[in-house]
Amino acid sequence: MKRIITFGEIMMRLCPEGYLRFIQSNTWDVSYAGGEANVAASLAQFGMEAAFVSKVPSHEIGQCAVNELRRFGVDTSLVIRGGERLGIYYVEKGASQRASKVIYDRAYSAIALARPEEFNWKEIFSGASWFHFTGITPALSDNMAGASREAVKTAREMGIPVSCDLNFRKKLWSGEKAGKVMGEILPFVDICIANEEDAADVFGIRTEGSDIGKGELRREGYVSVARQICERFGCKKTAITLRGSISASDNNWSGMLYEKGEAFFAPNYLIRIVDRVGGGDSFAAGLIYSQLSLWDNQKSINFAVAASCLKHSIEHDFNLVSVAEAETLAAGNASGRVQR
Amino acid sequence: MKRIITFGEIMMRLCPEGYLRFIQSNTWDVSYAGGEANVAASLAQFGMEAAFVSKVPSHEIGQCAVNELRRFGVDTSLVIRGGERLGIYYVEKGASQRASKVIYDRAYSAIALARPEEFNWKEIFSGASWFHFTGITPALSDNMAGASREAVKTAREMGIPVSCDLNFRKKLWSGEKAGKVMGEILPFVDICIANEEDAADVFGIRTEGSDIGKGELRREGYVSVARQICERFGCKKTAITLRGSISASDNNWSGMLYEKGEAFFAPNYLIRIVDRVGGGDSFAAGLIYSQLSLWDNQKSINFAVAASCLKHSIEHDFNLVSVAEAETLAAGNASGRVQR
Amino acid sequence: MKRIITFGEIMMRLCPEGYLRFIQSNTWDVSYAGGEANVAASLAQFGMEAAFVSKVPSHEIGQCAVNELRRFGVDTSLVIRGGERLGIYYVEKGASQRASKVIYDRAYSAIALARPEEFNWKEIFSGASWFHFTGITPALSDNMAGASREAVKTAREMGIPVSCDLNFRKKLWSGEKAGKVMGEILPFVDICIANEEDAADVFGIRTEGSDIGKGELRREGYVSVARQICERFGCKKTAITLRGSISASDNNWSGMLYEKGEAFFAPNYLIRIVDRVGGGDSFAAGLIYSQLSLWDNQKSINFAVAASCLKHSIEHDFNLVSVAEAETLAAGNASGRVQR
Amino acid sequence: MKRIITFGEIMMRLCPEGYLRFIQSNTWDVSYAGGEANVAASLAQFGMEAAFVSKVPSHEIGQCAVNELRRFGVDTSLVIRGGERLGIYYVEKGASQRASKVIYDRAYSAIALARPEEFNWKEIFSGASWFHFTGITPALSDNMAGASREAVKTAREMGIPVSCDLNFRKKLWSGEKAGKVMGEILPFVDICIANEEDAADVFGIRTEGSDIGKGELRREGYVSVARQICERFGCKKTAITLRGSISASDNNWSGMLYEKGEAFFAPNYLIRIVDRVGGGDSFAAGLIYSQLSLWDNQKSINFAVAASCLKHSIEHDFNLVSVAEAETLAAGNASGRVQR
Amino acid sequence: MKRIITFGEIMMRLCPEGYLRFIQSNTWDVSYAGGEANVAASLAQFGMEAAFVSKVPSHEIGQCAVNELRRFGVDTSLVIRGGERLGIYYVEKGASQRASKVIYDRAYSAIALARPEEFNWKEIFSGASWFHFTGITPALSDNMAGASREAVKTAREMGIPVSCDLNFRKKLWSGEKAGKVMGEILPFVDICIANEEDAADVFGIRTEGSDIGKGELRREGYVSVARQICERFGCKKTAITLRGSISASDNNWSGMLYEKGEAFFAPNYLIRIVDRVGGGDSFAAGLIYSQLSLWDNQKSINFAVAASCLKHSIEHDFNLVSVAEAETLAAGNASGRVQR
Amino acid sequence: MKRIITFGEIMMRLCPEGYLRFIQSNTWDVSYAGGEANVAASLAQFGMEAAFVSKVPSHEIGQCAVNELRRFGVDTSLVIRGGERLGIYYVEKGASQRASKVIYDRAYSAIALARPEEFNWKEIFSGASWFHFTGITPALSDNMAGASREAVKTAREMGIPVSCDLNFRKKLWSGEKAGKVMGEILPFVDICIANEEDAADVFGIRTEGSDIGKGELRREGYVSVARQICERFGCKKTAITLRGSISASDNNWSGMLYEKGEAFFAPNYLIRIVDRVGGGDSFAAGLIYSQLSLWDNQKSINFAVAASCLKHSIEHDFNLVSVAEAETLAAGNASGRVQR
Repeated sequence: MKRIITFGEIMMRLCPEGYLRFIQSNTWDVSYAGGEANVAASLAQFGMEAAFVSKVPSHEIGQCAVNELRRFGVDTSLVIRGGERLGIYYVEKGASQRASKVIYDRAYSAIALARPEEFNWKEIFSGASWFHFTGITPALSDNMAGASREAVKTAREMGIPVSCDLNFRKKLWSGEKAGKVMGEILPFVDICIANEEDAADVFGIRTEGSDIGKGELRREGYVSVARQICERFGCKKTAITLRGSISASDNNWSGMLYEKGEAFFAPNYLIRIVDRVGGGDSFAAGLIYSQLSLWDNQKSINFAVAASCLKHSIEHDFNLVSVAEAETLAAGNASGRVQR
Repeated sequence: MKRIITFGEIMMRLCPEGYLRFIQSNTWDVSYAGGEANVAASLAQFGMEAAFVSKVPSHEIGQCAVNELRRFGVDTSLVIRGGERLGIYYVEKGASQRASKVIYDRAYSAIALARPEEFNWKEIFSGASWFHFTGITPALSDNMAGASREAVKTAREMGIPVSCDLNFRKKLWSGEKAGKVMGEILPFVDICIANEEDAADVFGIRTEGSDIGKGELRREGYVSVARQICERFGCKKTAITLRGSISASDNNWSGMLYEKGEAFFAPNYLIRIVDRVGGGDSFAAGLIYSQLSLWDNQKSINFAVAASCLKHSIEHDFNLVSVAEAETLAAGNASGRVQR
Repeated sequence: MKRIITFGEIMMRLCPEGYLRFIQSNTWDVSYAGGEANVAASLAQFGMEAAFVSKVPSHEIGQCAVNELRRFGVDTSLVIRGGERLGIYYVEKGASQRASKVIYDRAYSAIALARPEEFNWKEIFSGASWFHFTGITPALSDNMAGASREAVKTAREMGIPVSCDLNFRKKLWSGEKAGKVMGEILPFVDICIANEEDAADVFGIRTEGSDIGKGELRREGYVSVARQICERFGCKKTAITLRGSISASDNNWSGMLYEKGEAFFAPNYLIRIVDRVGGGDSFAAGLIYSQLSLWDNQKSINFAVAASCLKHSIEHDFNLVSVAEAETLAAGNASGRVQR
Repeated sequence: MKRIITFGEIMMRLCPEGYLRFIQSNTWDVSYAGGEANVAASLAQFGMEAAFVSKVPSHEIGQCAVNELRRFGVDTSLVIRGGERLGIYYVEKGASQRASKVIYDRAYSAIALARPEEFNWKEIFSGASWFHFTGITPALSDNMAGASREAVKTAREMGIPVSCDLNFRKKLWSGEKAGKVMGEILPFVDICIANEEDAADVFGIRTEGSDIGKGELRREGYVSVARQICERFGCKKTAITLRGSISASDNNWSGMLYEKGEAFFAPNYLIRIVDRVGGGDSFAAGLIYSQLSLWDNQKSINFAVAASCLKHSIEHDFNLVSVAEAETLAAGNASGRVQR
Repeated sequence: MKRIITFGEIMMRLCPEGYLRFIQSNTWDVSYAGGEANVAASLAQFGMEAAFVSKVPSHEIGQCAVNELRRFGVDTSLVIRGGERLGIYYVEKGASQRASKVIYDRAYSAIALARPEEFNWKEIFSGASWFHFTGITPALSDNMAGASREAVKTAREMGIPVSCDLNFRKKLWSGEKAGKVMGEILPFVDICIANEEDAADVFGIRTEGSDIGKGELRREGYVSVARQICERFGCKKTAITLRGSISASDNNWSGMLYEKGEAFFAPNYLIRIVDRVGGGDSFAAGLIYSQLSLWDNQKSINFAVAASCLKHSIEHDFNLVSVAEAETLAAGNASGRVQR
Repeated sequence: MKRIITFGEIMMRLCPEGYLRFIQSNTWDVSYAGGEANVAASLAQFGMEAAFVSKVPSHEIGQCAVNELRRFGVDTSLVIRGGERLGIYYVEKGASQRASKVIYDRAYSAIALARPEEFNWKEIFSGASWFHFTGITPALSDNMAGASREAVKTAREMGIPVSCDLNFRKKLWSGEKAGKVMGEILPFVDICIANEEDAADVFGIRTEGSDIGKGELRREGYVSVARQICERFGCKKTAITLRGSISASDNNWSGMLYEKGEAFFAPNYLIRIVDRVGGGDSFAAGLIYSQLSLWDNQKSINFAVAASCLKHSIEHDFNLVSVAEAETLAAGNASGRVQR
């Protein structure tokens, strides 16, 4: 069984019931999530050995986050205990023309205040086949930017492939600072994952076609972005998620994988959204699974998009689908007939 | 800050969980609502000083209604305490081809049995910039018809603009009686709000085009109705909400504002419905806000329709959206992308 | 009032809240259901005297099933008490591209282990106007296959019309065994109900057109299947439900009734699904009601399809709609406007 | 199986979750209850044929009340449909020193506005072995007072024993009026049930001992009250419930049955209260069951007190215990050990 | 109507359902609370004009706190908006031998990071009759210690009586620092409220008797503590709450009020606990109400203890009882009989 | 870290909300439990490495059981997947005089139908320091009786201490059969755990004193039972749990540990019960922890009784308390004061 290491923050996610707004809610639905934790959880459902590296407080609220990861099969033995607080984010589900809202209360979390030397990457990567993180981790603090840099360098030294989802969060840092930090990190990254905005916000790389055209023109724009990323930073592959937001209830969803001048597009899915938070992370997990399965690029992107399409029908951030379920959809069966 | 007075009944609204039918439900979701209370609550979210005039029992159930209004920022200092019961209405949410159902249990409520002299309109209107009520209030009882008449006359004397939503309820009175009473009230109303059926049911004024055509023809029909209302009663403007009910889950929604021979139509929105009760009231609130902001008619109707479009995505009757949210939608951003 | 007897298993149905997956759920929503119990419950809502024949344990869990039937007006005086367990099935609601899932835990139930001689069909059918069951009942055990055979023979002797929904469940028996047992039973059945797969799986009768074409061609295929069933087993009529599964959230739904060479198709409904389990049973109930009302075939199939269309908007298996509601939809009113 | 007829109002009971106060609650727990409906439901659990006579609106809310009765096995075929509203009462559960609160909203209910001639008592009592009602029914309206008088007279003519629980409600009528009306009814009552306050409030009959002493003195007071009732109205027996309210969480509970100069006291139970509403009704049901079982007075009062003791541990008004459970407690087993 | 100003932090309170432990919970029950907010809410239920001074973020989570205060009638016009986060605390309800647990996540809250000059005490106290705060406010930060000092000095200058509950929180500051800061503040405080531990932890003033004896000896110890506080700081009165913790489910509860050498003890209540958090604050509110009512010391302490006794039967921190309810208990009626 | 192996069944536990009876419940609270799974979960909270040996179906319902164990830190790598069903048991919480009820639906579960050879005990015990099971496991089936025999023999060969809780379940087997099977197993058991009834029901060994006396006499009875067990089967120690059931709400709870003629009694706790199912298992876990900590017998029994006392205040079967919490109570701190 392949062992994947992911590194980042896990937060408590608080969500009103159904479509209630924040100011209508008298209870929070509680789950635990974070970009890299989501990837680990999805990979665990795929039957992989996924270990999550982070730091959480030693009190019960920190334990809750660990327990949620354990429940879904993630190895939490690398999670450090200490610090004062677990980051929190509030999610208000949108519907129709009303957008979903996220309020973050993550400053001063245990992981943001952790010191780089608390993480012994040599030991952490022992036995690992893959390392994944997102641009959120270095954005948490200078300490975590340092830890991320050290992590990717150690991975490269140990010959462990690295994937990184740019995941730009403007509430955490400026595009300028992100560009500087991520620019030092990406040269150690094998597979870069981005969405339309990330590349522009962080590196000023733009999908020229997306504003001006449709169909082929637009597709060429994505390819151009991917090519620029690969060329500028020496990444082997770049994957781009393609979301067409019709409304908070309906989205188009697809993705592209680029390697050496060639671009592979997955079919598009029109999705009735149950919960779209974590969609990008489920794509990353699908892609990692594909890569570790040594599938070709077309099969890889098809699987990653199908897996993440299914995520949108699942509550909370973790993509709790099996390989078989994602493969069934990737094979074209989207009818949703009852399975008895 | 502008002060708006609304006058009417507030009821307890009881609703099964999710899409359960009345006869499946073992719990009621409780909220408090009523045409004019809804308008006050929406205006309070817009940052206005909205005061609600009504009468509720002095026991805890009456207090609950007051507390819900206070919670959402409505001034309840004008609510009289007394009487025996708070009116109730039951809402069963429809879906797909199954229509929503409303059962009223509002007879003998504190407000329906209140006496006109309990309301000192001179004092009530002190400092007010607007008065709003709907055709439901005079329909509650002859006493409340009298109170409504007195209210609009006093407002006219004090130079306070008045808006009235016809809101015909056939369970409360006959079209004939409604026509007679509302016919005496409308001459004191500056802005009349109606939907397609109201004008016909109450005054026998019909949207000729709506049965026979589409597009322009149909639009002309609405204009004709608005013109007839303005001319017959001397209202300055008439606004009409345009609902196209595809199913209990999907509606088209738009509106028109007519003034002096000119008609202004807002864009149409295709809505995935979360809860459509209170849609008309949120339109009225949007329109009042627009008028008090001295916006032109096109901007006014666009804002009112955008605000009320968003209402359909919100549980319960109160339209808990901000001016910024409605303006964003009115400006054309309906994509529902997550706001982080 | 017409008295209808239905015979089969009633199970506890356990369902996560909303769209949660099984592995996310910490509570089960509990209802009680089963093909023939569903038909009885629907007929009771139509105002018929519907009695359900089954066996449930004498402990409280068995009593819960009886109480749910009584609550919705089903006569439970023919339910035998005894045995050890009530069958269970778990339903996970799908959404968008994610299919719904059903896990059965029904083996060794009281009814599956009951002996044929526990049912005195002469007495059971006293005063009855109709008998209905599905292919699930004989599939439960050889004993229940025997009881089913005896039931239909007695009904035929007593001149009571019999309807049977093939309802093939591959988890309960093989197509081969189903074909053998049902082949002995169908000659005593007046109206056979099937969906596209049933006829093929049980009897090898195929809807040739369904794979190869659309529109008329496809419709001819259904007619051919119905004709083959009627001819092979001597059934008077055969009805077929037509489901077009776009996704777990959206389905097309229609049906056909065949008699003596003539086929009657109902209009198609595009449905936003709330809960589709029990859809076929609600169709059977609609058809039985139509037959007992002596309606012509076109009116019959229209009513049955409209009633079962509404079922898809209702939580749990029981189709809790009135005759008036189904007739309103059958008459073309599908707009879902609020009924006040 | 003995058939018991009870006659009165069934209301919707709305209750906050747990120990929340009315003004904290955003949902109501819904059940359906009423003095005589509670007695019918309890007797149905005892395996008796219990039929409830009342009138409820024909809309879904009325149907909900009927369905709850059917669910628990009460014969609802004698319930008339019509009128506008179902009475409502709100229950706030007290705890420790904080008392429980009940707010009634029952005026203008279907049964209160029903006409006496809607009830054909000859037919209603056909096949009946017992008739029970409480002082609440005649208190609802003059019409219902008339219907009650007619009912007891018809029962006497047909030789059907009658029990009546005085159940004085000062919100419904004055003690004076109650005394007058009940004074005309009691001569037709075989078994009168009262608590300490009722006899004093309605008839001015006082438990002299209860203020002035303890133990024997106090017991003699109760006996004196019972004797006075029997003598004044010619009742065969009088039963008195004895509640010692330590706090809203803890009560002492016992009862006495008096016949021909002899008084039989049941053991006292110290109760941790789950829900005490309906406690008196469960006592009445226990007593009726005892009488129909022809048990001696000591066994009767012991069973009635044990059954009603158990009621206090059960949510909602209906006493959902079996004869076996009440007998186990009456036999002295109060240890509450887990029954596996 | 008397106007009371309270000053402090309002936090989000998150609580598992029922008696679930933190690590079992998948939902949080949400309320909003804080020592001084609790006092304001209780005084508002008593019919006083209570205004709360604080700072909360301008996002929806901050708005939720404001809305909860408004719902229960607290004047929130003095609440400043800004800062990043609302403090949070988690409450796990204990039972029997298992203690309740509180985890704080309040660092870096808007109020803790506010600057003293944001509060214009002259304006804030305009029209006020009383000022109340607790030792928690100055413990939040040096800034808030400064603001508290300024507040009490301004109040003294303006002749507004000040009450302060010591409320020592060892997680916020050391006893030493608390002693220093509170030592500067108390000279401006008219009524000091403390419990057994506070006086010792903050000022080293001990209830000598509490370890060594019972009854009179122990009472003398409390009197000695109160006398020392009054003498050292010049407070007019000192009140002490007396909690006897039998278990997490059962507590004894009483209190003492000391003035000029005389001590007044309230009766003791044995309480079945529903929720004891906020008990001390409800005592403070009762005492303030008593003082503003100009009641004598015995009546004052009796009312304060009765009001706070009732708090223990109410969920969440706010003591939602009326003056009438507290007076009924203070008058000796603790039987908890149902109030119809 | 010490590794403990436990072996048995894990079931789904279904429970109505709060104190609702089975027949009132429309939702089940879901947890997963079983005598030996409970012990493993408790030991994991104590920080031990606890592994659970069992067999569950490979479908999602089986996975739910595994996930619940993982969530609370139990090693599930030894759980075999296969078979058809997960056993179920229903728990109805009693209160006051109403006893709790348990209904089992566990026949034909995956573990009951497993074959002994599926368990390779040599491998399972590799690295283990302790083996624990209860009399329920051999009672499940002859196969599991065989597996249990093999397990204890292998443990003895490998020098691993074995504890066994007699846990007689009369629904699973007769006392006679239990006596025979357990009589063959006990000689390989080091520590036998029993309650008052078990020893009598299984081996006919009686606590003579328990019926006839109190205090010392009664204690001597327990000692006599323990001595007989140790002597007859050669167990090193026997522990007995002592439950005094006052009512379903209040229990006395203590325990005794016997070794070589000496008996050690823990203090008694009077418990307000939240959930008493799993109480015995939490005692076993406490005892195993004590033994592995090499504590003396008095400290051992004190800890085991304190830990299991706390269990009664915790929902569900798993005893989610820490060593520190149990030690605090064992040290005499039972006041339940809030821990901030």
